[in-house]
Amino acid sequence: MNHYAPEALTGFCTAALVAAGVGEPIAASVAQSLVYADVRGVESHGVLRLPIYVRRVREKMVDVIRQPAVVQDRGATALMDGGNNFGAYVGQKALDLAMARARDYGVATVGVRRSNHFGTAAYFAEQAAARGLVAVIVSNASQTMPPTGGVRPFLGTNPLAIAAPTGGPTPFLLDMATSQVARGKIIAAARRGEAIPEGWAIDAAGQPTRDAEAGLAGAVLPLGGAKGYGLSMAIDILAGVLTGAGYGPHVRNMYEDWKNPQDVGHAFILIDIAAFMPMPAFIARMQDYLALLKAEPRAPGVAEILFAGEYEHRLAEGRRAQGIALVPALVRELAALAADLAVAMPDPLETSDRRSGTAAAGA
Amino acid sequence: MNHYAPEALTGFCTAALVAAGVGEPIAASVAQSLVYADVRGVESHGVLRLPIYVRRVREKMVDVIRQPAVVQDRGATALMDGGNNFGAYVGQKALDLAMARARDYGVATVGVRRSNHFGTAAYFAEQAAARGLVAVIVSNASQTMPPTGGVRPFLGTNPLAIAAPTGGPTPFLLDMATSQVARGKIIAAARRGEAIPEGWAIDAAGQPTRDAEAGLAGAVLPLGGAKGYGLSMAIDILAGVLTGAGYGPHVRNMYEDWKNPQDVGHAFILIDIAAFMPMPAFIARMQDYLALLKAEPRAPGVAEILFAGEYEHRLAEGRRAQGIALVPALVRELAALAADLAVAMPDPLETSDRRSGTAAAGA
Repeated sequence: MNHYAPEALTGFCTAALVAAGVGEPIAASVAQSLVYADVRGVESHGVLRLPIYVRRVREKMVDVIRQPAVVQDRGATALMDGGNNFGAYVGQKALDLAMARARDYGVATVGVRRSNHFGTAAYFAEQAAARGLVAVIVSNASQTMPPTGGVRPFLGTNPLAIAAPTGGPTPFLLDMATSQVARGKIIAAARRGEAIPEGWAIDAAGQPTRDAEAGLAGAVLPLGGAKGYGLSMAIDILAGVLTGAGYGPHVRNMYEDWKNPQDVGHAFILIDIAAFMPMPAFIARMQDYLALLKAEPRAPGVAEILFAGEYEHRLAEGRRAQGIALVPALVRELAALAADLAVAMPDPLETSDRRSGTAAAGA
Repeated sequence: MNHYAPEALTGFCTAALVAAGVGEPIAASVAQSLVYADVRGVESHGVLRLPIYVRRVREKMVDVIRQPAVVQDRGATALMDGGNNFGAYVGQKALDLAMARARDYGVATVGVRRSNHFGTAAYFAEQAAARGLVAVIVSNASQTMPPTGGVRPFLGTNPLAIAAPTGGPTPFLLDMATSQVARGKIIAAARRGEAIPEGWAIDAAGQPTRDAEAGLAGAVLPLGGAKGYGLSMAIDILAGVLTGAGYGPHVRNMYEDWKNPQDVGHAFILIDIAAFMPMPAFIARMQDYLALLKAEPRAPGVAEILFAGEYEHRLAEGRRAQGIALVPALVRELAALAADLAVAMPDPLETSDRRSGTAAAGA
């Protein structure tokens, strides 16, 4: 597999979007979100989404002219109309507003309607944590999961991110889909031609399946049954019903619906730690928490107990240094897109040396 | 099994707590929370907790004199010191404050430290939904779950409740522990002498068990592995770290620790729907959502697709009319407590007729 420098991929994604007619600030916002996901090992929300994003622009399903606008404002709360612009860009505007308001009021909630797929929620949550906020960020998504008792997709895998600073370089950063797994992981498995574990999905007939393509044609299952179903619906209420966005079947699938905007909704709930205690006191408590956690006895074969986001943070450190590996099928798809848009495909890093090095180390 | 009228049980719990030295308003708050749980079929948080609550008062582990007090206030946020009073009472004070502030600011977050076990979070969340608010309510709890990779209890089953009005008598009301099941369900199984399903718990040696007592001696497992672990820790950060309450091992077990207050923490995040859209518009959207959900095709044997809280609401309707069934072991325990406190045990409803009626109908 070829490896690419994150900065090179960000530049490429930006250039591709600009070539497709997207203004530079919007393109840069989207590119940063995509590469952030790849750096953290969340390939499902990474540059593999670039082709569909470009296609949504070209088919005028995303409006890259209209700016997000605040349509309701009570200070600690605001409602933003995303204007059907890119989710990563709309989300950034909503996050920036929510961070400012949380500073002013101690807590803020910014709801967003008429948005699009906003990438990995962690991208926003980590920014908030870096500014001394506890973040609870949710988005709805197009239909992929049945309700408990149902047989076909009705709810999205509606993600939930919760982040808090730790005082170190690695924030606490939970970013979870409300499905057993993120649908993107099934997309990634299908791309790799791999089977998926039992319990991830049902096929179009409502039967359990280990075939990734069949699972994509069917439905992913909610996390732990009724709890995941309830959590997904709760997020749909917060991000969709409350904001005036789509919900349930009213959130359109970006791969399948070429007539309607997605109408995705988001909600950003940010809490200023300083409204509760001085930041050094909070950090001391988090450090104590993590020290206690790390000192816990471990199951056989477990080298270290990790907290949410820690594994991804370590992956990110490695990938920033050594580049992001892209599977050949994705490289071919991006190269075709690059040719089509007349932008330069980035050069891979010199990976053959590293790869033989790795193989030797593993032998 | 004997059945008891909810009002009779509420009166009994109040009288028992008053006889133990608790002021009437506090006793009534606790009694209402306990019976609310039983009415909704959440026996694990019902009157089976009365004996331990009384014992905590008698052993002076709960302070029923000191009133909860606001110690930080920024308007949209407040921090309350529970004064080690009963969780149901402290929680009510915090909820009342949060509801008023959410009206004023559109969103409010009230954190609570130095509290105790506050019963079922749904008790608070339903009140907020009835007043036109979307509620996100969390509490931490004493150690029952290992982190992913760990082998012994470190985190609580830290519950999360999310509620919203629907326009009908049944709100959307998710109230979930972040474990595969609520620890209380294992307590209830142990009380009934029943086995527990696989995947609910590990024993004290870290091995999977179906023995309820062994599971109580060991640890319940997080919901869906790493996701439930991350969610539980996120709640611990919001309810514990951020509020100055205990977290992880610093939250004391009310059954086992007779030297220290529990130092439970809670967080109430309430959002005023009117800050986003007029209530009738929100209700119309929720009604549309529920109509779409109910019209979904169903798996074989499923009579109706229910939303979170709907099953419990229907149970509650039945139990308000027909009484709450208490298992004989619990009746004996409550009767002993009644005798000890010199309060009258309530008379059961005339249940033998109903029971033979039920048996006949089932035959």
